[in-house]
Amino acid sequence: MSNKPIILYDIPSKAPGIAWSPNTWKTRYGLNYKGLAYKTEWVEYPDIADFCIKIGAKPTMTRRDGSPYYTLPVIQDPNTGAIISDSMRIAEYLDETYPDTPKLIPAGTHVFQKTFMAAYDHATEGLWPFIIPAVAKILRPTSEEFFVRTREATLGKKLTEVYPSGDDLQPAWKKVEDGFGKVDKWLNEPMNEGKPFVMGDVLSYADLMIAGEMQWCKMGFGEESDLWKDMLKWQDGRWGKLVDRLKEFEGPPEQDLVD
Amino acid sequence: MSNKPIILYDIPSKAPGIAWSPNTWKTRYGLNYKGLAYKTEWVEYPDIADFCIKIGAKPTMTRRDGSPYYTLPVIQDPNTGAIISDSMRIAEYLDETYPDTPKLIPAGTHVFQKTFMAAYDHATEGLWPFIIPAVAKILRPTSEEFFVRTREATLGKKLTEVYPSGDDLQPAWKKVEDGFGKVDKWLNEPMNEGKPFVMGDVLSYADLMIAGEMQWCKMGFGEESDLWKDMLKWQDGRWGKLVDRLKEFEGPPEQDLVD
Repeated sequence: MSNKPIILYDIPSKAPGIAWSPNTWKTRYGLNYKGLAYKTEWVEYPDIADFCIKIGAKPTMTRRDGSPYYTLPVIQDPNTGAIISDSMRIAEYLDETYPDTPKLIPAGTHVFQKTFMAAYDHATEGLWPFIIPAVAKILRPTSEEFFVRTREATLGKKLTEVYPSGDDLQPAWKKVEDGFGKVDKWLNEPMNEGKPFVMGDVLSYADLMIAGEMQWCKMGFGEESDLWKDMLKWQDGRWGKLVDRLKEFEGPPEQDLVD
Repeated sequence: MSNKPIILYDIPSKAPGIAWSPNTWKTRYGLNYKGLAYKTEWVEYPDIADFCIKIGAKPTMTRRDGSPYYTLPVIQDPNTGAIISDSMRIAEYLDETYPDTPKLIPAGTHVFQKTFMAAYDHATEGLWPFIIPAVAKILRPTSEEFFVRTREATLGKKLTEVYPSGDDLQPAWKKVEDGFGKVDKWLNEPMNEGKPFVMGDVLSYADLMIAGEMQWCKMGFGEESDLWKDMLKWQDGRWGKLVDRLKEFEGPPEQDLVD
């Protein structure tokens, strides 16, 4: 077991110390589920690449032009000296390095965890035009400017044009609901029906992924928003129930305010 | 273990006794992998619905107009009296009913097997405009007429218009290769690299699904076709290697010619 706390690098928002990124949430949930000591350090969007290069964290992707793309989460483990990027790789690292803690990726399910995410992402892709513009608004100015500029360059349009409006709004939101209906149907596979998790009674990375997406929507849209309240009603309340079930693995409500 | 052979209902082609359907292949592979005795009976496309109703096999889907949709594979197990439709449900039935045989769906992976298929189908959807018209040509006249008519109704165009031609051909085929590249990348997840199967060293339903798709392409395009030969070269020969590895679970080259 670890003695010195692992450092989790996360992206701050206007709500100090409250995590919102779906990807860093996967790692945060995982660290808490494993009962490993950790502390959060916050890195604004425009600083992520330089920061990763400085500490020696690998890029997680390659851009079309061949340049490296750096993302968070990254963890730094002072017990081993390891610096790991990418939430899947972090989960694997934690499973291997701390073998006495519950597994995030049960043996033989590595490919399945990945393809579950791919299937989920495809089914719920209608969420993006809603959540990306919403997230921009909860970031602090320096990250917001960077986030909006880079996302607009990728999407080829203004985020204000991305967000569904007028007659498009209702059908676009219905499409999101239907997408989550597809995921719900998968989770209700006959042999899994009534079971709390993707793998039945055993929590795994895939559940943390879904719960992380829910944290993203809750923070991005706002807990009091109609959109989030809608999502809590969809599919018989499945998504809110999952977040509730994992509440014990959220960690403290405010994560170390190192800034 | 079974004493009386299970009956596997399959769809015939112009090559008598040679299976070609990706869905019935999943069941055929599964029965052979489990070492269960079975025999094949062949049902032409236009007869499937009436036949299923007659023997009491459930529909596998509901059409948009609410009517039931009957498909093969269906199995009939004279040892228990069970009649099961849908290759996933058949795999579950066989795992439960013959617990001493190797599992097709290891515990906890039911949802993952399903979402693997969803992710695979999405990644390789570019294959459809090639394979659907190709399959029409290998069916016997009564099935061919039914298949072409129903597929054209669903797609809203002639199958001859669906098949990529002229300047579209090369980019459309490249899209298929890239789609399989995506699946290959998933299978090469770091913790799975060099392992033969989706779950590493353990064969499961997901592998039978991929191999079934390969049988479909091999039979549909023809073993001597350029398309199939291309597929055998893609991704370092992964797909042909999988088929070779599962050769021992193909069953006899010609399946009981009950007609």
